[in-house]
Amino acid sequence: MAGKQKESSCPTQLEHAECGKRIMAVRDALDIISGKWKLPIILALTFGDKRFKEMERDIQGITAKMLSKELKDLEMNDLVKRTVYDTMPVTVEYSLTDYGGTLKKLIGELHTWGAQHRKRILGKK
Amino acid sequence: MAGKQKESSCPTQLEHAECGKRIMAVRDALDIISGKWKLPIILALTFGDKRFKEMERDIQGITAKMLSKELKDLEMNDLVKRTVYDTMPVTVEYSLTDYGGTLKKLIGELHTWGAQHRKRILGKK
Repeated sequence: MAGKQKESSCPTQLEHAECGKRIMAVRDALDIISGKWKLPIILALTFGDKRFKEMERDIQGITAKMLSKELKDLEMNDLVKRTVYDTMPVTVEYSLTDYGGTLKKLIGELHTWGAQHRKRILGKK
Repeated sequence: MAGKQKESSCPTQLEHAECGKRIMAVRDALDIISGKWKLPIILALTFGDKRFKEMERDIQGITAKMLSKELKDLEMNDLVKRTVYDTMPVTVEYSLTDYGGTLKKLIGELHTWGAQHRKRILGKK
């Protein structure tokens, strides 16, 4: 077994456990926010509370069906709040929960990386 | 038109443009790294260069077919490098490119968020 150690991808048992734990945490986060639309929806809501139609317009390429499904998922995970106002006709607004707000830093990193990636790709052409 | 302004999700034209640009940058980043496996693969490679079999073992739940597809995508986007060593039998190792390394900060944020999310969920039970 000791001879095999050098071939292992995580050199020590401690690092191997840490490696697995980190992968699990990253996958936990990805399970919640993965897919093409969840983070763009959350980002749109960082600019203020929005109605369904407003989000549909702001997030290019999203369909009403997808937006509706994603909003339900985000609500279930306590990231987005849906508020119904007793007006005539009824007004429905979506907002970020405090917990949803904890994703802002992550979204900031995605934005920074995405912006430089676009620059890099355009520079290559 | 001016009367409609208040209903808009982005209060000023400038903010509206900024809102769209940010969503686009986040989506650019997500296009490259989205899906269940790309970031876990990149994370596994931050622990050092690895062979295919090592990654298959470290990333629980991934199949050889998925791993192979994802590695090809990552190679195409210059995030991962595949090196063939002229040994008998041939050895193939995968490593993170310098560009792939620029994702470390983003992965760090995902790790932090994922770890606290797991704590939060476990706390609720």
